[in-house]
Amino acid sequence: MTVLDQLIRSLSRFPGVGKKSATRMAYFLLQSDDEYLRALSEQIGTLKARIRHCSVCGIYTEADPCDYCSDTRRDSRILCVVEQSQDVGIIESTGEYEGRYHILGGALSPIDGIGPAELNIDSLLRRLKAGGINEVIIATNPSVEGDTTALYLVSLVKDMGLTVSRLASGLPVGGDLEYADRLTLARSLKGRTKM
Amino acid sequence: MTVLDQLIRSLSRFPGVGKKSATRMAYFLLQSDDEYLRALSEQIGTLKARIRHCSVCGIYTEADPCDYCSDTRRDSRILCVVEQSQDVGIIESTGEYEGRYHILGGALSPIDGIGPAELNIDSLLRRLKAGGINEVIIATNPSVEGDTTALYLVSLVKDMGLTVSRLASGLPVGGDLEYADRLTLARSLKGRTKM
Repeated sequence: MTVLDQLIRSLSRFPGVGKKSATRMAYFLLQSDDEYLRALSEQIGTLKARIRHCSVCGIYTEADPCDYCSDTRRDSRILCVVEQSQDVGIIESTGEYEGRYHILGGALSPIDGIGPAELNIDSLLRRLKAGGINEVIIATNPSVEGDTTALYLVSLVKDMGLTVSRLASGLPVGGDLEYADRLTLARSLKGRTKM
Repeated sequence: MTVLDQLIRSLSRFPGVGKKSATRMAYFLLQSDDEYLRALSEQIGTLKARIRHCSVCGIYTEADPCDYCSDTRRDSRILCVVEQSQDVGIIESTGEYEGRYHILGGALSPIDGIGPAELNIDSLLRRLKAGGINEVIIATNPSVEGDTTALYLVSLVKDMGLTVSRLASGLPVGGDLEYADRLTLARSLKGRTKM
């Protein structure tokens, strides 16, 4: 196998990238300047040595504790629980949340062998038991796994005297009733808000 | 800028990859095994040192001359002229061609500052003048630039006593007249074949 074929094979392991896109990427790299290739190669090669999980919330970070955990301006009484590190960036982009985060590292999925022990649930309970937090927002995905995880977390924390909520599920803003799927529409009916 | 942001910025320079896909790719890399990251990093970092242009046909290759130019089973009397290295793989995949190749390195495009001097045309003429080739297939893209380049090449080689042809342009196989664009349909009419 040639060097180029090896590179194409590596690139085609990227999510959403097939052999055709990987080939385009490989030729793009061949035509790129040396400086860019050197930087990209180093960024990939040193990635795992430079990024770890925050010992408090579990997010991918260079500094431990991470920027979110060490930022004293954030409200440490509210905790938003998400499945993955990348979900934090999406919530931050709304500009509507100024509390802390906790990253589960996935969602419960017995079929994939992911039980409570595989998620950062122990560290979540430790944080809640340490006190100071009075509200928990469960922001797992609106999927079967995310819903299961949310229900499981509620069962664990229900006696702790916390306000526990879950992100609203319903029609996307700018969407169209005509194109909404049945399940989403059912949820948005069930969760209808007074006006 | 964090290491992760730098990586996302580098990945979003890939063709067809926006910030969202680059972010997905970066998190995919974070979750990949060390062996894969080490291999990918090295493949990218050593790419340009290991791959050069074939001194005969101009294709990207590790060995010089390339496999196509050094394969004695290929018919050296026919030469297929393409714009880019990656076009060779696509023509090879048809299994219909067993001659040699010549890679122009692009197509004429005055607006982008690409004139005859920027393409591997001198080396093409040297190969044709050296003798032994009696047929030239011009396989530039069916675009304004590809057509211009084809016409220009024909004007250069018309007195050399060669059979010169161009890939047929027309309706894609499995396509539908209803969805064909006007220009493609016009070409397929003009180039209609007897049956």
